Amino acid sequence: MGQQQTNPASNPVSGQSGDERAIVRPARPALDAAVSALAAVLLKRVLESIGNPGLRFVLWNGDEIPRHRDAKSGRILIHDMAALLRLVANPAMNFGEMYASRRIDVQGDLPELLEQVYRALPREDGVTDKRLRLGAWLDAQRHSLRQARNNIRHHYDFGNDFYKLWLDREMIYTCAYFPAPAIDLESAQRAKMQHICRKLRLKPGEKVIEAGCGWGAMALHMARQHGVSVQAYNISREQISFARERARQEGFGAQVEFIEDDYRNARGKFDAFVSVGMLEHVGPERYEELGHLIDGVLADHGRGLIHSIGRDYPQALNAWTERRIFPAACPPSLSQMMNIFEPCGFSVLDVENLRLHYAKTLEHWLQRFEANAAAVEAMFDPTVARTWRLYLAGSLAAFRAGNMQLFQVLFARSRDNRIPWTRDAP
Amino acid sequence: MGQQQTNPASNPVSGQSGDERAIVRPARPALDAAVSALAAVLLKRVLESIGNPGLRFVLWNGDEIPRHRDAKSGRILIHDMAALLRLVANPAMNFGEMYASRRIDVQGDLPELLEQVYRALPREDGVTDKRLRLGAWLDAQRHSLRQARNNIRHHYDFGNDFYKLWLDREMIYTCAYFPAPAIDLESAQRAKMQHICRKLRLKPGEKVIEAGCGWGAMALHMARQHGVSVQAYNISREQISFARERARQEGFGAQVEFIEDDYRNARGKFDAFVSVGMLEHVGPERYEELGHLIDGVLADHGRGLIHSIGRDYPQALNAWTERRIFPAACPPSLSQMMNIFEPCGFSVLDVENLRLHYAKTLEHWLQRFEANAAAVEAMFDPTVARTWRLYLAGSLAAFRAGNMQLFQVLFARSRDNRIPWTRDAP
Repeated sequence: MGQQQTNPASNPVSGQSGDERAIVRPARPALDAAVSALAAVLLKRVLESIGNPGLRFVLWNGDEIPRHRDAKSGRILIHDMAALLRLVANPAMNFGEMYASRRIDVQGDLPELLEQVYRALPREDGVTDKRLRLGAWLDAQRHSLRQARNNIRHHYDFGNDFYKLWLDREMIYTCAYFPAPAIDLESAQRAKMQHICRKLRLKPGEKVIEAGCGWGAMALHMARQHGVSVQAYNISREQISFARERARQEGFGAQVEFIEDDYRNARGKFDAFVSVGMLEHVGPERYEELGHLIDGVLADHGRGLIHSIGRDYPQALNAWTERRIFPAACPPSLSQMMNIFEPCGFSVLDVENLRLHYAKTLEHWLQRFEANAAAVEAMFDPTVARTWRLYLAGSLAAFRAGNMQLFQVLFARSRDNRIPWTRDAP
Repeated sequence: MGQQQTNPASNPVSGQSGDERAIVRPARPALDAAVSALAAVLLKRVLESIGNPGLRFVLWNGDEIPRHRDAKSGRILIHDMAALLRLVANPAMNFGEMYASRRIDVQGDLPELLEQVYRALPREDGVTDKRLRLGAWLDAQRHSLRQARNNIRHHYDFGNDFYKLWLDREMIYTCAYFPAPAIDLESAQRAKMQHICRKLRLKPGEKVIEAGCGWGAMALHMARQHGVSVQAYNISREQISFARERARQEGFGAQVEFIEDDYRNARGKFDAFVSVGMLEHVGPERYEELGHLIDGVLADHGRGLIHSIGRDYPQALNAWTERRIFPAACPPSLSQMMNIFEPCGFSVLDVENLRLHYAKTLEHWLQRFEANAAAVEAMFDPTVARTWRLYLAGSLAAFRAGNMQLFQVLFARSRDNRIPWTRDAP
């Protein structure tokens, strides 16, 4: 990546504006020194709270905190006192807020600096059983049919034109599969779809249900390459319109049905259930419900595959990402995911962790995003561009540091002996 | 399989003895009819309690219960009234007890009949969170260092000569891997070891720790085929002696160290941790302890693989199997297994379910066992032979019916990016 920010530290207030900053900025040298001393104390506490990653802060007056640190480490530029105070008050939320509004900048490679932070982060067993139980009702409301629509529209109805700027040609907004790291994104997305179809052993004439179909690439791939018919659910209106138009153009209007509805309203019997990048939005308190839904729509010898971002242990999504990017999203740990299968008579056949493939996918997205940053700014404004840059770079960092995983879970009914003999079996 | 039992129903008491039976056996026709009527009521309740599998009971007087059932279904012959009452009182425990002592027989294919029973069995969510908590202290005692020795010796110190009668040449008492179903057992056991080594990406000169090494085949395979050095733990004295002798004969005495001790006493740093068929004996309440043990002995870029019988959801082992075959054993569900990894900074990379391979392995074992049944009877007595026949046939049935799974779980440290790029990567 290596997008370099200009360094405003040498001329701290150049290009800065805003009343808040003007008011709190100290006027006299003595006060300035006192403020720097206070800032040093506060920022050291911030660093301690996040496991002391090897990074430095640079204040608006050019002061570096901590001093004497390895020059190679990344630097976070804080442009005003109010930004400092907000960062100290709530680093997880306000680093993103201040970065987006350019009151905080990063000098050096943004994903590398964020990876450094992720690698140092202490384990956060935030989601205890107790909290899960207390918050279960509240969480359930956040994933009700109506609220789910709002959550999804917040993110995916951002505009197809925006996503076109940095996704692959087929508009696939989930982890790709790179048979080798150097393969291009378009090929890797096709390889991912093929990887999933192979695990599902799709046969011509079979019926497939897809829960959360994005812009429709997977549904169309299954129809085109494997001769199956597909019912694909999505509650994002913009995505469904796009997918329907594509199906019509490619002549799959009859074979692939794009349904603008919650997958929970699905009816019928299917030979395969597939869901790529939807589980993150379901909420662990609703996994058993999802399991029963699948149980209801899957034929006796049906197979299922869920592809989802995951965690090595249960934890909440970063507060800023949840607020600005993915309302109510929660990547589950495998133990949490098992709540889909274990209560509902399913047998897990195969789990594959593709974490490094998501890091690679994000490298491609971020590269394309940077190449089109001017277009994003023109489409929205600089704050939106910086919000998405930070989100993409942060996600890349999280997958590189092992804070996020990507699980593909293949399953069938417990009693079914028509499962493949080996992974390699044709 | 198809081992046929003679049908003593036509001549109910032939070959039977025992005071208990003599006392309760009705003497007069009227009483006999009343007993049959009572037996019908009781056995119908037994059938209901186990989900009404399509099977019939035949009483000592020739009565069939229930009548008018499909003639193809298997038949359970009950030779005396006391056996009937014990079966009714506790079917899970006493079917095995009565079968072993030949007061109950099975007519037809034993594994098929048992599979029929397993397939009909209602879901048994016996291991609730609450019970787990209440019983946790008790369970922990059953898997203490000392008690673990007793549990293991009960089973594995049964005599190497006994296991030689029906295991493969290398004495491997865990699920084999059949690249194709028709492959012979010897090849399939070698393929299993190779399958595991491939997943672990062993390199010459690396150090491996094996927790629970059986008769040593896996440790010797790793040393011979991959040039690693191995510390292999086992608390079964007979197995360790056998393994040491083999290592000496094959010239691996220096490269493979067989240690008669609990794996929990292991110290040092290793490039790989492997455990094949040991987790079943650990007890879910000790999984986190196991995770921390692995964390302590695994190098930064270490890999681990645990191969274990498992379940689709948490449930207790069949009471009879636990009493007569595997004291304190408990095959875990994946959600339970995650307690090894999630609290301890590990990332699950790959899970493979080899359930049908264990069914195939058991077909081979049972076939060899039947071929050597006379030798087993001569070595011990008919009760032992029937106990082991029922255990092997029951296990085969459980894997065929999907009541048991076989999980291979590959893992590494969460922060480690030196994991393989794909499953197929060299």
